[in-house]
Amino acid sequence: MKATIMHAPGDVRYESVPDPRIERPTDAIIKLSATCICGSDLWPYRGISKQDGPAHMGHEYCGVVVEVGSAVKTIKPGQFVVGSFCISDNTCPHCAFGFHSSCAQGEFMSGAQAPYARVPLADGTLVATAELPNAEMIPHLLAVSDVLGTGWYAAVAAQVRPGSTAVVVGDGAVGLMGVLAASQLGAGRIIAMSRHASRQKLAREFGATDIVAERGDEGIARIKELTDGVGAESVLECVGMGESMDQAMGVCRPGGTIGYVGVPHGVSFDGQKLFFSQRRMLGGPAPVRRFLPDLMDRVLQGAIQPGKVFDLVLPIAEVAEGYKAMDERRAIKTLLRVE
Amino acid sequence: MKATIMHAPGDVRYESVPDPRIERPTDAIIKLSATCICGSDLWPYRGISKQDGPAHMGHEYCGVVVEVGSAVKTIKPGQFVVGSFCISDNTCPHCAFGFHSSCAQGEFMSGAQAPYARVPLADGTLVATAELPNAEMIPHLLAVSDVLGTGWYAAVAAQVRPGSTAVVVGDGAVGLMGVLAASQLGAGRIIAMSRHASRQKLAREFGATDIVAERGDEGIARIKELTDGVGAESVLECVGMGESMDQAMGVCRPGGTIGYVGVPHGVSFDGQKLFFSQRRMLGGPAPVRRFLPDLMDRVLQGAIQPGKVFDLVLPIAEVAEGYKAMDERRAIKTLLRVE
Repeated sequence: MKATIMHAPGDVRYESVPDPRIERPTDAIIKLSATCICGSDLWPYRGISKQDGPAHMGHEYCGVVVEVGSAVKTIKPGQFVVGSFCISDNTCPHCAFGFHSSCAQGEFMSGAQAPYARVPLADGTLVATAELPNAEMIPHLLAVSDVLGTGWYAAVAAQVRPGSTAVVVGDGAVGLMGVLAASQLGAGRIIAMSRHASRQKLAREFGATDIVAERGDEGIARIKELTDGVGAESVLECVGMGESMDQAMGVCRPGGTIGYVGVPHGVSFDGQKLFFSQRRMLGGPAPVRRFLPDLMDRVLQGAIQPGKVFDLVLPIAEVAEGYKAMDERRAIKTLLRVE
Repeated sequence: MKATIMHAPGDVRYESVPDPRIERPTDAIIKLSATCICGSDLWPYRGISKQDGPAHMGHEYCGVVVEVGSAVKTIKPGQFVVGSFCISDNTCPHCAFGFHSSCAQGEFMSGAQAPYARVPLADGTLVATAELPNAEMIPHLLAVSDVLGTGWYAAVAAQVRPGSTAVVVGDGAVGLMGVLAASQLGAGRIIAMSRHASRQKLAREFGATDIVAERGDEGIARIKELTDGVGAESVLECVGMGESMDQAMGVCRPGGTIGYVGVPHGVSFDGQKLFFSQRRMLGGPAPVRRFLPDLMDRVLQGAIQPGKVFDLVLPIAEVAEGYKAMDERRAIKTLLRVE
């Protein structure tokens, strides 16, 4: 088959690779219903994080199971499944504690920007629907796999509670999903920091009550103004750069919580500053598996339409253009059609 | 009157100073029933944190009100009171949110190693008992003012819950109070890290179920062993040095929480490391005022005896020896008798 390989920064190709096959008895092979490009795929694309040699790209996926290994007990061929970008056994103490992204057997998914993919630890990682979903549900279910799951985790880690005030730093796809999550979790006020008209519009659609276009000290001052000088209980940091983390720190109230889901690049914290500012913090790769059943239900019941975050749809053969469009910020997030 | 002045590292004197007086209408003057020396007083004593010129020492206090300013409404002369080392108005949004140590009008108490002291924002800062307590209650009530309140906050910030496993890093007075707090909050297992026989004994008395004498990688390995390879849900970091923070990080499970109350000295965190380790963190100067009524009740009802942490009692005129004994680790914590 053909699949997406990144050879070097800026060099993504859709090219022939060996078909995926069962390698371990706990594996499953799925035929993807659709796949997509993640903001984190842009780190190596932009040369910000390094990679050794060509890499099989793609870790967001949903589709139909075509084959399972001999040790797979609950997942069956023919089922429609969604999985997390974090592979997990769902039985170890870390999974039992809700932190599947620290699973004792954990690994990161790869190779999902392709028509078929191998999913390790299938029983632990995949969640099946009762029936095959309609085509129009696919983008929404695909979004659950990472971008919504990660935005959701940002809101949960930031302890968003009914009636509380949340600030979302970052208007990328994850930030927009963070807005949706905060709204679903009942936040009374959701302030999205965004400078782009199309993203502001989507943020409002997902539940943002206020938009702040200013950044840096001005952005902090504006949010202080909106919160009677206090700051927000919950801040979702959805970027991972030093500036965005400073922004998150600056708008959080003492005793408030920052949930950070952007992989930090060049970010460090001074212990004494953190101490006296009294910010609670929790970050990490999202334990999406914890949220999958709930989020899939919300999608299937029509309560949420996270797939609206895909504003560019391309056939997977044009994956290189998908990366380019996201890199140049012409697209928020690219869905890749798989035939 | 005479009071405690630190002139330079290692140079503490009990010498004549002007009597404290009402400076602002919200002040109260109290006659101290006892006072004590804090672990944090050793930072300037050891020259680790700098100070400009002579400083009035002491921020832990309880005693009888002798005079109040014209704007003081609830606190009355003749009442026995305990206050926090953090002065707070108890009405601003930060106090209302339980973070009195970030009070909009906040300041740090000073000058309490003396027979009389001025307490600013008396109505917000002080909590009065219904009756004058017996003499034997004084050490326990004094402990509430900072050392117990801070250990308690470490346990609350670390999210100690009934049945959970807590590790306490640091066997100083605050660490020992952290053990007591974790026990009162219902932790099922409390592992105290301590190498000193007398402190181990006190830790057990306060509720420690396990003692780990090893440090560094060996200490981490030992605690992993005690927790089936998982680590602890809650870690109380009660020191503030790089090594103790590394220890706290190392023994905390993914998704677990570190409550850190030792003022960090030379501690910094790498964002990416913190992200992938998935530790929740909350630290800061303890908002003791939040806990005062509850902790004073526990003391007065005889449920806890935090004053056991004082293993050296001196007349206040011998305060210099009190500092020396703590600096040389001959004493855990020195209570100063005030006549």
